[in-house]
Amino acid sequence: MPLTHTLKVELGDRSYPIYIGDGLLGEADLLGRHVDGQTALIISNTTVAPLYLASVQKSLDAHNIRHDNLLLDDGEQYKTIASVGIIIDRLLQQKHDRQTTLIALGGGVVGDITGFAASIYQRGVNYIQIPTTLLSQVDSSVGGKTGVNHVLGKNMIGTFYQPQCVLADTSTLDTLSDRELSAGLAEVIKYGLIRDAKFFQWLEQNIQKLKDRDKEALSEAIQISCNCKAEIVSIDEREAGIRAILNLGHSFGHAIETTMGYGNWLHGEAVAAGLVMAADLSERHRWIDQSVKQQTIALLEKSSLPVKAPTDMTFDQYVNAMAIDKKNVDGTIKLVLLKNLGEAFVTTDYDPKLLEQTINNS
Amino acid sequence: MPLTHTLKVELGDRSYPIYIGDGLLGEADLLGRHVDGQTALIISNTTVAPLYLASVQKSLDAHNIRHDNLLLDDGEQYKTIASVGIIIDRLLQQKHDRQTTLIALGGGVVGDITGFAASIYQRGVNYIQIPTTLLSQVDSSVGGKTGVNHVLGKNMIGTFYQPQCVLADTSTLDTLSDRELSAGLAEVIKYGLIRDAKFFQWLEQNIQKLKDRDKEALSEAIQISCNCKAEIVSIDEREAGIRAILNLGHSFGHAIETTMGYGNWLHGEAVAAGLVMAADLSERHRWIDQSVKQQTIALLEKSSLPVKAPTDMTFDQYVNAMAIDKKNVDGTIKLVLLKNLGEAFVTTDYDPKLLEQTINNS
Repeated sequence: MPLTHTLKVELGDRSYPIYIGDGLLGEADLLGRHVDGQTALIISNTTVAPLYLASVQKSLDAHNIRHDNLLLDDGEQYKTIASVGIIIDRLLQQKHDRQTTLIALGGGVVGDITGFAASIYQRGVNYIQIPTTLLSQVDSSVGGKTGVNHVLGKNMIGTFYQPQCVLADTSTLDTLSDRELSAGLAEVIKYGLIRDAKFFQWLEQNIQKLKDRDKEALSEAIQISCNCKAEIVSIDEREAGIRAILNLGHSFGHAIETTMGYGNWLHGEAVAAGLVMAADLSERHRWIDQSVKQQTIALLEKSSLPVKAPTDMTFDQYVNAMAIDKKNVDGTIKLVLLKNLGEAFVTTDYDPKLLEQTINNS
Repeated sequence: MPLTHTLKVELGDRSYPIYIGDGLLGEADLLGRHVDGQTALIISNTTVAPLYLASVQKSLDAHNIRHDNLLLDDGEQYKTIASVGIIIDRLLQQKHDRQTTLIALGGGVVGDITGFAASIYQRGVNYIQIPTTLLSQVDSSVGGKTGVNHVLGKNMIGTFYQPQCVLADTSTLDTLSDRELSAGLAEVIKYGLIRDAKFFQWLEQNIQKLKDRDKEALSEAIQISCNCKAEIVSIDEREAGIRAILNLGHSFGHAIETTMGYGNWLHGEAVAAGLVMAADLSERHRWIDQSVKQQTIALLEKSSLPVKAPTDMTFDQYVNAMAIDKKNVDGTIKLVLLKNLGEAFVTTDYDPKLLEQTINNS
């Protein structure tokens, strides 16, 4: 029996566990006990399914759960309402009723689409997250943000809808490309920046181990990240306040993703460039020392992440994409910035000229 | 100041008022106080907008709320994910943020689509129901069921998402066609059948007044209907149990609507035929006297509603459409039936042969 860590997202009657461990997909009971009905639809993509679908199917078979599967194309460019339509069609064609469970097997794109489909099929059915990328294990699978992109903005269509459980098997990271692993590290580093200076220092010391896929280091990083996210989500599920700090770097990052076309920059890569921009703007306001920005850049660079935004993006492109981004209230662009290493805050009270300088110099 | 009745749907921090009265659209404050932000998108259709849009716009102007409007085509056949897409596109094009409010001005189709769009735009924005048909005033505007149809089933895509308030102006019923008025009466009669024998008797005595659009009688019928629905929804928001009795006649009715093509039978007309089928099946089990079925038929006939299902629908067509209907658990067709006038119950424990007889003889 492999060593498993269990965290809990505390949300009253919507609380759920996060299981983190090496080889969890082989434990049929873990999955089986969270499927309430007798049917399930596994949603995955053409990259992940050949690797892990059989294992999930075996777990369901062991519990006599009838299962179908649906494979989407792989990539952020398929995180669209059209993909949701394909899932809904399949559920209806195969007569899945309100007691069915959707199982998301894949990265953040699969998880976000599946969660959204679960939230709107017959006004809501259960779903389970089995994230197979570092990024989805530390971020998108936890917290119930579901959704798809629109040509005019990222995640513009979606719901808050919590899963029955999250099952993060660290052995799935063995098959991840180096680029995807690095993309996940961007979100891990974000947790250090927003709330945990000690964790940031730990990351500075252990970054090579993480890149080398040392299981113990990865497990530690995932646990600390998930714990940070679970705590924040428990306080503010629907992002009325503090949850917004999880979006450090994301307003800039989303603008990059939207403008450059989904899939060209990985989400984590765009976030990495966005983290540097957030640090830069914070420094221009003298809210943080230059050293914090430099440390951020250094750690991202060691993680093989971009620290420069695309050079061909104009100021107007940023502002147009950011103005429509969901983090804004009544037209003002709200930003998450740093007032210290390990301390983020949400503000509209920044100097627009400094924002322009940050954009023009990134 | 016109006489207004206020009911409340009690749902903790999602509670909201239902205002019922003659001329409410002329009261700018009533609408204004329920719009939190500074922007709104009014969604209506090409039939209703020429009659009442100006009045709603005036109320918003009086509160300095920036408003846009979007007119959908009129009819159940437009209750589709495509219409939701049009709303989302418009919201993004006009840069509505998370603080915006959607206002549904129209019948059940406009209300259901608008509520669904509100629930998924940027993971949920506020919306207000201004129902302008009898059916939507007594049923669909209350209780937070949102959704759209799929070619394989009615309301298969949707959410539970409560509005900020419901504003039912009985003067809007003056412009309703006789056919639409009758369709609304089907849902009114349903409330008597499922929970209120006294109300059923009152309806028998006052049906002509209602058809003649007597304001006092209509207001009374709307209040009693909304009160019944508000009580049930407060107990069981997400239809885990008792809320299902509100679906009396609806499994049969949905099968008729789906099979005959949306828009050919009005929802209320299909429900009327469905109510007779539910009474017929209940009588075949000797759960109700023949007299109850006869009273039901007589009252529906006096309301100018169909009491016979389409003759060209086969048993298989019913069972196929019903098997996918959302009222089922793990494949068994769950039905709402009567055990008395004024007492409905949910059951899977009926004789399939009697169901076949009901379908073949309806």
